[in-house]
Amino acid sequence: MQMPLGQFLLRRLHEVGINHLFGVPGDFNLSFLEQTLQPSPIRFINNCNELNAAYAADGYARSNGLGAFVTTWGVGDLSALNGLAGAYAENIPVVHISGLPRLHAVNERALLHHTLVDGDYDNIGRCVAEFTVAQTRLTPANAVIEIDRLLQCCWLERRPVHLQLPSDITHLMIEVPTQPLCLMEPTSDPLQVERVISRLQAQWRPENSPVFLLDNDAVRFGVIDVIRTIAEKMAIPYAVLPSAKGIMDEDSALYLGVYAGQASLPTVSHAIHHSDCVIGVGLRLTDCNTGLFSQLIDNSRLISLRRFDVAIKGAQFPGVMLKELLTKLAEQVTDREARPLPPRPSLPLSTEAQTTFSQAYFWQAIQAFIQPEVIIFGEAGTAHSGASSLRLPAGARYHSQIIWGSIGFTLPALLGSQIAQPDQRHLLFIGDGSLQLTVQELSTLLQQRLTPIIFLINNRGYTIERLILGESSAYNDVNEWDYAKLPSVLDKGNHALSFIVDDIPSLHQALQAAENPNRDKAIFIEIRFSPLDAPPQLKQFAKRFADYDYGNCGPRNLNH
Amino acid sequence: MQMPLGQFLLRRLHEVGINHLFGVPGDFNLSFLEQTLQPSPIRFINNCNELNAAYAADGYARSNGLGAFVTTWGVGDLSALNGLAGAYAENIPVVHISGLPRLHAVNERALLHHTLVDGDYDNIGRCVAEFTVAQTRLTPANAVIEIDRLLQCCWLERRPVHLQLPSDITHLMIEVPTQPLCLMEPTSDPLQVERVISRLQAQWRPENSPVFLLDNDAVRFGVIDVIRTIAEKMAIPYAVLPSAKGIMDEDSALYLGVYAGQASLPTVSHAIHHSDCVIGVGLRLTDCNTGLFSQLIDNSRLISLRRFDVAIKGAQFPGVMLKELLTKLAEQVTDREARPLPPRPSLPLSTEAQTTFSQAYFWQAIQAFIQPEVIIFGEAGTAHSGASSLRLPAGARYHSQIIWGSIGFTLPALLGSQIAQPDQRHLLFIGDGSLQLTVQELSTLLQQRLTPIIFLINNRGYTIERLILGESSAYNDVNEWDYAKLPSVLDKGNHALSFIVDDIPSLHQALQAAENPNRDKAIFIEIRFSPLDAPPQLKQFAKRFADYDYGNCGPRNLNH
Repeated sequence: MQMPLGQFLLRRLHEVGINHLFGVPGDFNLSFLEQTLQPSPIRFINNCNELNAAYAADGYARSNGLGAFVTTWGVGDLSALNGLAGAYAENIPVVHISGLPRLHAVNERALLHHTLVDGDYDNIGRCVAEFTVAQTRLTPANAVIEIDRLLQCCWLERRPVHLQLPSDITHLMIEVPTQPLCLMEPTSDPLQVERVISRLQAQWRPENSPVFLLDNDAVRFGVIDVIRTIAEKMAIPYAVLPSAKGIMDEDSALYLGVYAGQASLPTVSHAIHHSDCVIGVGLRLTDCNTGLFSQLIDNSRLISLRRFDVAIKGAQFPGVMLKELLTKLAEQVTDREARPLPPRPSLPLSTEAQTTFSQAYFWQAIQAFIQPEVIIFGEAGTAHSGASSLRLPAGARYHSQIIWGSIGFTLPALLGSQIAQPDQRHLLFIGDGSLQLTVQELSTLLQQRLTPIIFLINNRGYTIERLILGESSAYNDVNEWDYAKLPSVLDKGNHALSFIVDDIPSLHQALQAAENPNRDKAIFIEIRFSPLDAPPQLKQFAKRFADYDYGNCGPRNLNH
Repeated sequence: MQMPLGQFLLRRLHEVGINHLFGVPGDFNLSFLEQTLQPSPIRFINNCNELNAAYAADGYARSNGLGAFVTTWGVGDLSALNGLAGAYAENIPVVHISGLPRLHAVNERALLHHTLVDGDYDNIGRCVAEFTVAQTRLTPANAVIEIDRLLQCCWLERRPVHLQLPSDITHLMIEVPTQPLCLMEPTSDPLQVERVISRLQAQWRPENSPVFLLDNDAVRFGVIDVIRTIAEKMAIPYAVLPSAKGIMDEDSALYLGVYAGQASLPTVSHAIHHSDCVIGVGLRLTDCNTGLFSQLIDNSRLISLRRFDVAIKGAQFPGVMLKELLTKLAEQVTDREARPLPPRPSLPLSTEAQTTFSQAYFWQAIQAFIQPEVIIFGEAGTAHSGASSLRLPAGARYHSQIIWGSIGFTLPALLGSQIAQPDQRHLLFIGDGSLQLTVQELSTLLQQRLTPIIFLINNRGYTIERLILGESSAYNDVNEWDYAKLPSVLDKGNHALSFIVDDIPSLHQALQAAENPNRDKAIFIEIRFSPLDAPPQLKQFAKRFADYDYGNCGPRNLNH
């Protein structure tokens, strides 16, 4: 079977579930983009810039499984690099296609634009290799082998890959397999799995108190359902790390809450600190995941299930794949009498009903506003801090980028996610400082007729940074925009309703409009808070961060 | 003499002429930003995102000599990388300061946010090293040596450097030199210079026809004045490559025009092709500089003066520094009888007066509008194509990024340039597709009370790409914005006047307002053209590019 090379690439992307390609056109990728026109199985979505395209592909992958985006050589690749690094850090499988100059020009080291004029066409690959798990330069000879290898690696590691497509080979015919590409899951050594299972079961005697502690690999590697089965059969409670907020039912009686070391609610830290068997899944104990390394989980009571291996109280077991292990375990475990569960932690906010307009009031109102199945994006800062303290209703999902923490990520990511799931209600919480980084992608979102609800928290600057250092320093200010007019200026199609909220009645008016089940427009709500109004947990966290970052020359000693 | 490390860095930056620092705050650079508050000699300017900050520092360096910007670790560094690469390709000395986590965390490979959670703190440095000429990680022990080394390298090579500043050492006292830093110019081997000069003078007999052909190193290395002296004394005409448009007086009788191989005006290519001695200065014969490698300058009649060496008809002379050589030469050359000069080329537009509203009319009107001493930025696309065909008045300067060619560059670069030269009139020509990439920096520009004149060419998409491939393909469309409202939405301070131009009267009305010598506001003019209206030279160029990029599967064969 023969097919043009570029069309084969599109076919493969489609076979692994990708229906949309984000990106920015440039002269070295135009011939490939021609192939995305009808009757291509994949629709191209034109982003405003390349970083936004990478973020959109990341958000798409979060709701779709995999995502992809295309840039042009050099300029586009480097602009998108921070987005690739974020996908790497957050375990998101994203395929980056870079339109390279024609193959002969590259091989002859021609002095083209978008290069350093030194004939070096390998510098981009060396950079991108730092933040991807596989890289290739396609030729008509290697395309079939390499495309399949890259897609397999992308899925295997749930991390980005980078693929260079020379501009003059997209339409060349190559011999291709007729069979669709099936993404492989690695398999375990069967004896090793049995060994691990019997060791695990020894920890689950009635006198033990196992607890699941999940990080985001649990959702990336598709084991939420089997963990739920095990947890329910065995009455094992579960907590999540901050980077895994919302990956598993928060309305279950087994759900403990978010564990972040000493920064956790007491009920959560008590359950983790007093368990004799913490079953960690994909744990990454970073600063933000542990209240600055304040976790108390020593190896003597930790079973660490990782993507491709297991460690039981320090003993290593390679060759055990996460999904296979948990699936076998779910088949073998028996119901056991439920132990008394710890009291279900309440929201910090709900202990005291808020009655004046503030961040505290706002998040209380949002708690009442969110509905089952909603997909929420929370940007770094007060937005994530507030949103991650919400108790999510059934089927809801929460996305943030807490490991990599690149501000501006969520707006383009929201675009990607809603392209993948257009009928699912999407909410975004984002601060003014963050919005300004990637604001233009609001345009694409509206042009695509998506209908998210965007809460723009206008607190006149980088509040999270004011809390760390420079409370009133000018470097933490951002210029004041007329935010509520952005939707009508960045899209002439009248596809959004805008609101300005600065008190309780205006908040509820906006929420009411957003609740309208028949609305066919996006909702953009600018909410004005004072610069230092922030969730209390963020204030504490910021102080600890300042001490960590600046050590003995910390903020208290910063008088010059 | 003792001084806090961060303040010493600011002092050194100030000593080499940097008075402003661009950037985005982040927790790892806040303690350094504290040091930019009064009484610091350097003012920090808060950009909307890091790529824009890098572009602004580049624009600042173009008008100031050197520029600098600061980002936070990982996320900020990678977002800015494309800006560093652009500065490298275009020979712009930019200092990049990256706020690293505290030194001990880095040395202990702590699992912090803004990393890949693998303890690797060298990956950013490896990436940045591809696009900078020197890199360092500061410590209290090496700071004095390394800061000076990096600033010297930055200036020596006129290219970017990268400096990692851990968050916890900014306020530590270090012993520092009292002497200010003097940027060094490398010196030549005196005998070698004499050898070169005598060889050169042999080419300048009355029977010879030398011609200068300049690239942008001539302005970066400060030799425009000496070249002018030599050219005038010896009656040697000069042309520039496209990447050096506007670097030397275009109102001189010696000025030939822009040479771009077969894409040049006939008078220019005739002068170059028939000279028996082309004196090239810093030539980089890229695709865009040569009408796709159609230059006719063989080695047998080329004298190539480069930054640190010379090649005369193929013979290499290392150890000859550009500025020293030309300065000595200027002292030694004697006036010679002027030879008959080639006829001064006229603008392609002016051969036929335009009377209907179109790009052709527009550029004709702009030719009449521009004044001496103006600084013009021309974005890739129809904007650069039109702007680069203007005949510049005395003292005017033109900036584009034709080598690296990253769209969106010029708006933040304009910000940087005008911060450096606030009293100089600045003009920007930029297309809608390009503007969308970096639009938010309009906010900073207005917040800083700058008063440029911005011509936004709204032709509903990427016209340059439509001319290459996909004339009416959707991937070349951009969403329609209400551009003229951008200034009032991205800055509430009412610091701009907006105009929409779609015919001849509205154009002249807008130009009249822009000409007002007493205005204290920026001028933003949206000009609407049809999508395929473009300067004729761009149409030709685009066709050749399509043939080059897609070879035998070029546009004519792209029916699937």
